[in-house]
Amino acid sequence: MKTETIEYKDGATTLRGFLAYDEKASGKRPGVIVMPEVYGLNDHARGKAQKLAELGYVALAGDPHGNGAVHNSLQDAMQAAGPLMGDPNNARNRMKATFDKLASLSQVDSSRIASIGFCMGGTLSLELARAGAPLRGVVSFHGGLQTQRPAEPGVLKAKLLVCTGADDPFVPAAQVNGFIEEVNKAKADWQVIIYSGTGHSFTNPDASKAGVPGVAYNKAADERSWAAMASFFKEIF
Amino acid sequence: MKTETIEYKDGATTLRGFLAYDEKASGKRPGVIVMPEVYGLNDHARGKAQKLAELGYVALAGDPHGNGAVHNSLQDAMQAAGPLMGDPNNARNRMKATFDKLASLSQVDSSRIASIGFCMGGTLSLELARAGAPLRGVVSFHGGLQTQRPAEPGVLKAKLLVCTGADDPFVPAAQVNGFIEEVNKAKADWQVIIYSGTGHSFTNPDASKAGVPGVAYNKAADERSWAAMASFFKEIF
Repeated sequence: MKTETIEYKDGATTLRGFLAYDEKASGKRPGVIVMPEVYGLNDHARGKAQKLAELGYVALAGDPHGNGAVHNSLQDAMQAAGPLMGDPNNARNRMKATFDKLASLSQVDSSRIASIGFCMGGTLSLELARAGAPLRGVVSFHGGLQTQRPAEPGVLKAKLLVCTGADDPFVPAAQVNGFIEEVNKAKADWQVIIYSGTGHSFTNPDASKAGVPGVAYNKAADERSWAAMASFFKEIF
Repeated sequence: MKTETIEYKDGATTLRGFLAYDEKASGKRPGVIVMPEVYGLNDHARGKAQKLAELGYVALAGDPHGNGAVHNSLQDAMQAAGPLMGDPNNARNRMKATFDKLASLSQVDSSRIASIGFCMGGTLSLELARAGAPLRGVVSFHGGLQTQRPAEPGVLKAKLLVCTGADDPFVPAAQVNGFIEEVNKAKADWQVIIYSGTGHSFTNPDASKAGVPGVAYNKAADERSWAAMASFFKEIF
């Protein structure tokens, strides 16, 4: 497997993504964007990109903050994410830049692209779908489901798979229900999977380090949601 | 593949189940109970049992009504199901008889049994789990989720996978939420998957024949829920 840092631009901001793919494979393959948790492009997202490359996809872990910035404290990360999460235009532009970079790669079949994301990365992936990007699918793992600019019928094209914890304090049932109402209005093809006994950040083995109640790794939910994604990709690609 | 009718008893009632397995396989294998829709042990349930045998399991499609009765009209079927659905004792006894029969077969590893069911069959499978049967798992496809005798912690042992349609008029969101509350109290390991644009009986290609609004086959949800079950079985067996 080959991994490399690739640079791309969102306006004046330089983004440093992490690309992973099987360099021995030939022909164009589906591409998958991997958007990290709020901390930035860290080892968690890199590891997921490498696992996707093992499944045969060309995976680009995106750089949400720019310049490859990674924040170790949740407070710093939230502050850095402010402009991105506060304005859907910013979120969508950053995601479109990531999509365009992945679509431009010679190994990638640009008609077969999906975006997955964790925590803020799930939210960003859903924003890209709401913006009408020609994605085959989006998978959100413990991502926030709210938006300032709801999906519209005919604009949102991606099939959506939302994997969420029943006990996630940042994505409570009311938020899940609001999302369902939104994407029903947009006539989307969606699936929501709810996992018992599961909090926020359940795919991240280091989640508990943040020391935030309701934020914890859950091995069963991590493995189940990854299997659900793999099955979903078989369907859409 | 070998299929055969096997008789067993629930009290004075003779039940005629449909067994499907790979007769060329050796050794004890996991067993799966397949409980039909309210109509009775018809071709839909037989077909699912055969598909499970192809996956390597010993599948017993149970006979809910006794004497292999199949009802063609929904009204007749509902009437026949009255005693079974009206009293949890009846439901649980019928399911225990089915479990015991499957567990007794020489091909079956009695420590690795699951129960799946469609519509009423999902409800019956969940009742068997609530009764504390030593099941590895239960999968409900568009099954009713209500019960007169809620699950209790320490009694319910099976992992639960509920596959339900977002537009199922017989399993509305309030019922799904009530189920989640019930199984949370019982400290169960559960997953709920909700499919968009999907009504009741979504696994049954003949569902529309009943002429009931909100009851219709949905190919995507049928295939997605079957894949979710197959993935779940890999985990629990």
